[in-house]
Amino acid sequence: MYPKSFQRLIQAFKKLPQVGNKAAERYAYAVFQMKSTEVNELLTSISEVKEKVVQCQQCFHLAEDALCEICQDPSRDHSIICVVNSSKDVLAMEKTGFYRGLYHVLLGEIAPTKGVMPQDLTIDELLGRLDANVKELILATNTTVEGETTAMYLKKILNNNEIKVTRLAHGIPMGGQLDYADELTLSKAITGRTKY
Amino acid sequence: MYPKSFQRLIQAFKKLPQVGNKAAERYAYAVFQMKSTEVNELLTSISEVKEKVVQCQQCFHLAEDALCEICQDPSRDHSIICVVNSSKDVLAMEKTGFYRGLYHVLLGEIAPTKGVMPQDLTIDELLGRLDANVKELILATNTTVEGETTAMYLKKILNNNEIKVTRLAHGIPMGGQLDYADELTLSKAITGRTKY
Repeated sequence: MYPKSFQRLIQAFKKLPQVGNKAAERYAYAVFQMKSTEVNELLTSISEVKEKVVQCQQCFHLAEDALCEICQDPSRDHSIICVVNSSKDVLAMEKTGFYRGLYHVLLGEIAPTKGVMPQDLTIDELLGRLDANVKELILATNTTVEGETTAMYLKKILNNNEIKVTRLAHGIPMGGQLDYADELTLSKAITGRTKY
Repeated sequence: MYPKSFQRLIQAFKKLPQVGNKAAERYAYAVFQMKSTEVNELLTSISEVKEKVVQCQQCFHLAEDALCEICQDPSRDHSIICVVNSSKDVLAMEKTGFYRGLYHVLLGEIAPTKGVMPQDLTIDELLGRLDANVKELILATNTTVEGETTAMYLKKILNNNEIKVTRLAHGIPMGGQLDYADELTLSKAITGRTKY
């Protein structure tokens, strides 16, 4: 048996996603063997994320201010919005270096079987952003069933709008998740985007 | 790009063993989405392990006092010591419920190629424990090259001692298929066969 405090740490680590008994045990050992400075670094970073990180009031990407760094950046093209499922997808897009517009994070995908309906996503907030300045909306949801459903739903409600609606080219393998795609594939997908 | 504090947390998580970029990102998101009470639980457990957990002065298993719970337990058989590589092996043995003696954690295995020599382990401390009360020493090191080397080394230096030295039985794992067992394991299983 492990000391009580050690057991409690194993349990705490097991609350992280996809962490089972073995991994939690391994992490607890690592903490036990870490230098105090490293442990303090870990503690501080956890607290700071909890204290400082919020969702951008405009695009719902992670931010430390009311607006995220991307929305605040005047050098970016504010006339084009790339609509993604999650903040991870923003990161994946940013890594390509091919996109200089803004984003809108839906915070999920339409999935009726899981009880996720359009009103659970940030679609109303997206519609609220579509003023005369916005010329193009890139639908960059996943190419999974849920992602395609979400794209089709958005296309439908934007039909009467004058904004150009595009979709990432299917350079992305079907059934793949956006944030697992390699940078080259994603770059191809951006440059080859088609009218939707 | 992620907010700075979020990036720092990803880096901190990456210092845990076998945690890469994707996992660290996933954990950082989990922290961001956790309730405050859960985050505090995680923070407290990390601090407490760092403050409270030490190595047992007698057997080197994890402990919160000078002696671990096992060494302190008067109901256990103090005349028999099971020698293992790490605290994880103590847990594995304890889970069987078949062993009621004490342990000695070597904190490693002899591995000259990795620069781990006998003096780097807690062998001197083990020898110091072998008084008239100790009747048996079970060598329960791994059955890898390093584990076998360590067992053989211990057997040799204990040769002049009156203590009974035993080794965990080698053989086919329970639930294992005979034709999947390697030749060495099968040879051990044949030579070590028991009356049925």
